[in-house]
Amino acid sequence: MRLVVVGAVAAGLSAASRARRLNPHLDIVVLEKGPDIAHAACGLPYYIEGRVSALEDLQAYSPEYFERERRITVRTDAEVAAIAHARREVQLADGERIPYDRLIIATGAVSASDAFPGSDQPHVFTLHSPADARRLKEFIRARRPRSAVVIGAGYIGLEVADALHANGIGVTLLAGDSAILGRLDATVVDAVKRRLDENAIAYRPNTLIRSIKPNEVAGVPSDLVVLATGMKPNTALAEDAGIALGSTGAIRVSDHMETNLHDIFAAGDCAEATHLITGRACWMPLGTTANKMGRVAGACAVGRRERFAGVVGTSIVRVLGLGIGLTGLSPAQARAEGFDAVATSIDAPDRPRYFRSANTTVELVADRRTGRLLGGAVLGVEGIAGRTNVIATALHAGMTVEQFEQLDLAYAPPFAPVWDPVLIAARQLRKLL
Amino acid sequence: MRLVVVGAVAAGLSAASRARRLNPHLDIVVLEKGPDIAHAACGLPYYIEGRVSALEDLQAYSPEYFERERRITVRTDAEVAAIAHARREVQLADGERIPYDRLIIATGAVSASDAFPGSDQPHVFTLHSPADARRLKEFIRARRPRSAVVIGAGYIGLEVADALHANGIGVTLLAGDSAILGRLDATVVDAVKRRLDENAIAYRPNTLIRSIKPNEVAGVPSDLVVLATGMKPNTALAEDAGIALGSTGAIRVSDHMETNLHDIFAAGDCAEATHLITGRACWMPLGTTANKMGRVAGACAVGRRERFAGVVGTSIVRVLGLGIGLTGLSPAQARAEGFDAVATSIDAPDRPRYFRSANTTVELVADRRTGRLLGGAVLGVEGIAGRTNVIATALHAGMTVEQFEQLDLAYAPPFAPVWDPVLIAARQLRKLL
Repeated sequence: MRLVVVGAVAAGLSAASRARRLNPHLDIVVLEKGPDIAHAACGLPYYIEGRVSALEDLQAYSPEYFERERRITVRTDAEVAAIAHARREVQLADGERIPYDRLIIATGAVSASDAFPGSDQPHVFTLHSPADARRLKEFIRARRPRSAVVIGAGYIGLEVADALHANGIGVTLLAGDSAILGRLDATVVDAVKRRLDENAIAYRPNTLIRSIKPNEVAGVPSDLVVLATGMKPNTALAEDAGIALGSTGAIRVSDHMETNLHDIFAAGDCAEATHLITGRACWMPLGTTANKMGRVAGACAVGRRERFAGVVGTSIVRVLGLGIGLTGLSPAQARAEGFDAVATSIDAPDRPRYFRSANTTVELVADRRTGRLLGGAVLGVEGIAGRTNVIATALHAGMTVEQFEQLDLAYAPPFAPVWDPVLIAARQLRKLL
Repeated sequence: MRLVVVGAVAAGLSAASRARRLNPHLDIVVLEKGPDIAHAACGLPYYIEGRVSALEDLQAYSPEYFERERRITVRTDAEVAAIAHARREVQLADGERIPYDRLIIATGAVSASDAFPGSDQPHVFTLHSPADARRLKEFIRARRPRSAVVIGAGYIGLEVADALHANGIGVTLLAGDSAILGRLDATVVDAVKRRLDENAIAYRPNTLIRSIKPNEVAGVPSDLVVLATGMKPNTALAEDAGIALGSTGAIRVSDHMETNLHDIFAAGDCAEATHLITGRACWMPLGTTANKMGRVAGACAVGRRERFAGVVGTSIVRVLGLGIGLTGLSPAQARAEGFDAVATSIDAPDRPRYFRSANTTVELVADRRTGRLLGGAVLGVEGIAGRTNVIATALHAGMTVEQFEQLDLAYAPPFAPVWDPVLIAARQLRKLL
């Protein structure tokens, strides 16, 4: 029996590895359209920044590793052009046909926006792949740009702005709307704007960009332009094969990562996940989710009935030293989903004041009708991931604010104050319920 | 109506403050037997270490502050000698009688061990109060001791050993048994022993100490001795008044912090709490718990029916740079409580390897019969509180290992690896269930 996996990054390689572990006899082939596999895309901004010195450090595994250690064949530069499911075979761009018994689609995401006129100039970049990063790094080295425009205020745009800033380049951040990290709420937007301002990074929201000119964008002079205008699920191959998409535009899958076609599974950034707060499908293209989905797809493809429960929408990013953790729904998202959303945002020390404390901001959102916690945001310097994860765990458990307020959290001066900021926020929020 | 509170540290002052907020008309009197109020005892080791430069920094509030801002009378050097509940009055050591309508007992904890012969020498110390800390600091300044013996390997013993070590004093840690932080399990014990060893702090478990001599203890030369042999609930006053203790030796209270005597409440280190894993009463004298209990006692004393749910037994300590977070039951504790305990301990990077990662150790304990998570320990340098708190939150929610493994936790290179160490531990543990 042969398992074919399309895509050799997080989801695809997790799926292949898990299938191998559960079934030593399976023939497993992973097909990757590009030259790189298993690359940590999340690390690319840190290569640009200079913290990661070699792109190879971001490549966790080689095709040889998979062949040798896991008896998995990983083929690079092997683009799948079509899936002929009736014949149970995929066809590569060069015409080669590869039969399968089970197929896992892990084609990831692609740039969402149509390129602006002028995007094909040599000073215009994206940062999706190691090849993109290599080209950008080389441009900075050779041309020593003094000014850059980054288009897009999502997490990649912010990380790239930070990385270019660290290279001594004057950065302007342009965005077509006024959202930052996909949020319009003041807690996140104001904190990031302040941080950009403190670092002399100009931020121009609601900017109409018609084209990219050789030395300016929307009136802003720039020697270098990075497009970070967002991603969309890469579903063309699946659609052509008759695989159904969901309302989010990503591939619709069951808890077992099954598509509507028998024996075809999908996982990672090309697939939907259940949002555990809304109960509805969502599209959350993140490395952690891709790995979890991949494992479940790999297990289910070899006959195990494992399950991917879904996500609560947790993400985190560091921008110019400020950590920003988000989980669940923002106040605006909660209202849009029909909740009677109540939110509060507090600033509190992250340690006892006598132990060099800094302020942490915690925003919590709850549903007035049920008292249930719906989401949270944590901003500050230390303990950001941990506090975000406590809220995420409470969201998984469906806790009410009252239950959350009772949490027995760790206290000692080097780590936290007696009243952890998340508990202070919960106490504040309960008064509003 | 008058509320009298006995004890002016965490629980007592939280109770008084909460009562005031809920009832502006109440007459509130807090009686403290010593000269200090509202002192952060957890900060004392950092004063000895030198990180906190003045003891005043550990004193959050003064009696004047309470009088002025909250109209709460706080009397220091006012030791309550007896409670005459039939007459609804307390009697001070000097004979003064103070009537009450409601009484809250927040008398804290006292040293558990009888003093060793020789404990009254000027080079022997405890570290419970600011006065203790002042005396110890002055001794170090004036006498420049070169060697110290710390007796007790609980968290105070370890923090004091660390603080003395930071002062350039050669430290030997003696303990009557082989437990470290109250645990016998290898994960915690071995990690602390290794850290002590790396810092040239001698550790002698199972040491029989007969007496403290002028310049040695149990054969170990020492210019300075600190007793950190543990605490017990301070219940003498309550017992004399006919207030029932629980099986732990602390005051038995309801979820509303009521004692067996009507109109008398107890909170903080003198009282029991419900352990949410075992469902049984436990004694966990910690600042966070004391504050939470105090708030509930204050609210219930003025007629609100608030509730203190209980604890999962979360604590954290930093020893010589190593963070150790504990929550729920250890493997040994779980077995002693009758669970069919299964445990696993893993080491995993706390970040992607390309982002200067360090190893974190995570131990998880579960019940084989139900798959329910029972406890965890997290050891390492960064993210220790956060990961401990994620486990604590899952314990509050009664999650199974399988549910825990699905947690959507924050991932970005500066904060965490794609697979957080707690999820790797959960995956490992599930294989054993």
